[in-house]
Amino acid sequence: MILLTRKAEFSASHYYWVPEWTEEENRRAFGKCANRNGHGHNYTLEVTVAGEIDQKTGFVVDLKELKDVIEREVMSVYDHRHLNLEVPEFASKMPTTENIAIAIWDRLDGKIAGAKLHRVRVYEMADLFADYYGEQ
Amino acid sequence: MILLTRKAEFSASHYYWVPEWTEEENRRAFGKCANRNGHGHNYTLEVTVAGEIDQKTGFVVDLKELKDVIEREVMSVYDHRHLNLEVPEFASKMPTTENIAIAIWDRLDGKIAGAKLHRVRVYEMADLFADYYGEQ
Amino acid sequence: MILLTRKAEFSASHYYWVPEWTEEENRRAFGKCANRNGHGHNYTLEVTVAGEIDQKTGFVVDLKELKDVIEREVMSVYDHRHLNLEVPEFASKMPTTENIAIAIWDRLDGKIAGAKLHRVRVYEMADLFADYYGEQ
Amino acid sequence: MILLTRKAEFSASHYYWVPEWTEEENRRAFGKCANRNGHGHNYTLEVTVAGEIDQKTGFVVDLKELKDVIEREVMSVYDHRHLNLEVPEFASKMPTTENIAIAIWDRLDGKIAGAKLHRVRVYEMADLFADYYGEQ
Amino acid sequence: MILLTRKAEFSASHYYWVPEWTEEENRRAFGKCANRNGHGHNYTLEVTVAGEIDQKTGFVVDLKELKDVIEREVMSVYDHRHLNLEVPEFASKMPTTENIAIAIWDRLDGKIAGAKLHRVRVYEMADLFADYYGEQ
Amino acid sequence: MILLTRKAEFSASHYYWVPEWTEEENRRAFGKCANRNGHGHNYTLEVTVAGEIDQKTGFVVDLKELKDVIEREVMSVYDHRHLNLEVPEFASKMPTTENIAIAIWDRLDGKIAGAKLHRVRVYEMADLFADYYGEQ
Repeated sequence: MILLTRKAEFSASHYYWVPEWTEEENRRAFGKCANRNGHGHNYTLEVTVAGEIDQKTGFVVDLKELKDVIEREVMSVYDHRHLNLEVPEFASKMPTTENIAIAIWDRLDGKIAGAKLHRVRVYEMADLFADYYGEQ
Repeated sequence: MILLTRKAEFSASHYYWVPEWTEEENRRAFGKCANRNGHGHNYTLEVTVAGEIDQKTGFVVDLKELKDVIEREVMSVYDHRHLNLEVPEFASKMPTTENIAIAIWDRLDGKIAGAKLHRVRVYEMADLFADYYGEQ
Repeated sequence: MILLTRKAEFSASHYYWVPEWTEEENRRAFGKCANRNGHGHNYTLEVTVAGEIDQKTGFVVDLKELKDVIEREVMSVYDHRHLNLEVPEFASKMPTTENIAIAIWDRLDGKIAGAKLHRVRVYEMADLFADYYGEQ
Repeated sequence: MILLTRKAEFSASHYYWVPEWTEEENRRAFGKCANRNGHGHNYTLEVTVAGEIDQKTGFVVDLKELKDVIEREVMSVYDHRHLNLEVPEFASKMPTTENIAIAIWDRLDGKIAGAKLHRVRVYEMADLFADYYGEQ
Repeated sequence: MILLTRKAEFSASHYYWVPEWTEEENRRAFGKCANRNGHGHNYTLEVTVAGEIDQKTGFVVDLKELKDVIEREVMSVYDHRHLNLEVPEFASKMPTTENIAIAIWDRLDGKIAGAKLHRVRVYEMADLFADYYGEQ
Repeated sequence: MILLTRKAEFSASHYYWVPEWTEEENRRAFGKCANRNGHGHNYTLEVTVAGEIDQKTGFVVDLKELKDVIEREVMSVYDHRHLNLEVPEFASKMPTTENIAIAIWDRLDGKIAGAKLHRVRVYEMADLFADYYGEQ
């Protein structure tokens, strides 16, 4: 078994806001991130798959297919979007780095022919990232 | 004369939209960037100053002061903001990488004690940046 | 369960020297690193915590608290210090990348409210790093 | 137990070509990578070893020895070479990122005094890498 | 006037060989780079254009057009190619980083609508790059 | 004319201290950098040379010679050293990023056969660097 990882980038807006809380409570918890006009990031996504190497091609997974799945399931929905306002899973969940990693896992899991999704890593900035390995 | 450069980062939202154009014209010109919910970036700013070295301290400029000026004049206004909606200079100008570089120049020029502003570089993403050297 | 990682940087001096060895033995084992005036690095620290996501906030851990703990327990003691001369754990232990990772683990373990310390990674330079997952 | 990782870089050429397939089949499967004049990459290799820390030196492994083993077993064979034409293991196997990681594992495994090979990671480009942990 | 820079990457093979020299002379001058099977790199290209900002759009140049020109004039010819064997300008010139920068300048100069080509930078590896500003 | 740049790295210690000032004045001016045990950095050096391309080889300068000059004139003196205590030019000058850039210029200027030294850039950290172009 071997692991293969592909990176991709998307640019998106978000804010942090708990509707049950007052403005003051949100400000105290999330600081500048509670600004409801939103702010944004260049997110970096790493998708890791695990599998056996095809003896003929030497590949675990068809790289073009992997790229297409990431494009179709994630990029076309997240890139250049406001996560809170336009991406369904964040209508009721906060678009934190942790929740984005889980949401991307759910979008990709079971869609990659011939390999198992192993890990989703999401960087919000170079100094902050989340890793999700699925439910275990 | 020597040049000294300090980097800083801010996260902000923006969109591209020419009010005199129809939605279709804006879409054609700016693609996904015309989405008015906004999308965002981790911008990297490089501020370069030019000056003579102080013989005693060996510095062109007091690094803490330089950091404070950048914080006060740029970061406190741009970071975690929606550029179109919250930063005055972009009420009437498109927040392109080029215009952001010029706007930051205008905010910093003349404010750095003991040195001359030489260049402002702004990265919107790792593969796109603008350089401004002031009017010449 | 999900993992969240935050990076931080500190600049410090160190040298490698086994007191029971002669200068020649130290030079042979450690080369230029045995220079007792010390040399230095920009260390990069990655702190990874594991936990459950708070359903309301979407966070595994309060990011500001995590930053404060890293600042208080590590940065304030290591940054701009000579590790051999000023940091207690290296009075009797060599400040190698490996030992630094373990020492930082010991400083942080049990101090992060609501999450478990999962991994400490320390880069001495871009091409050399150590990972510690605690005693297992 | 602790993990220590060292990076190294090599520049090499390769192409993808299954001899049992026609030119058209190869083109369809591998696109531009099927060009038999070859194309090349700056590969980045990360070698991770696991072991106990020597109480006297504070090291898991002698860093110079580790560098020498990587140089002798991998760099001297792969660097500035055409992988398909000059490296024996790729006479009959495709030099994909996955197969390169396994081949480097096989070259290094058992050769690092005092520590166990834990992982080999190979980056073909910044956005594509393979990880191999040995047969398990 | 403002400068805008866009990066792109291509992967290619090359070797260094002066036909008038013996194998020994080539080896002495170019070391491993004289291996005629070729070796390769992930080249990074930075294209900088200079111009006036369009008052309506805020852009110096249409980014999509700039990308298309780079794709058509450079990427489609250089990417996944053996520079010595497949790219016409290197039939009689060595594909050094310097010559690649000049050749890309010649390919792009005069083709970028509304802006002047200002600089071409080519990285062969992260630690080696050439800059060309045209004939002056 | 074309420019060629080569990077190199060195690890060194330093501190900031003006002997005519009291401890309190030094602390006020330099903060943690005034700690006389020293602290350290992984410095990155970029050496840019300008020249004409040799029509036969395609090179502005022999890359191995350039590397050797940098090694002999800079690396062997600065790497793994305490700049204040061991490098002669910093006995009487503060080892700031600015002064290090000038000192490296003075060490390299006139020593690079066949090309002119154009610029010396020194990064103290990823977010701080100085550029020196010689006296003009």
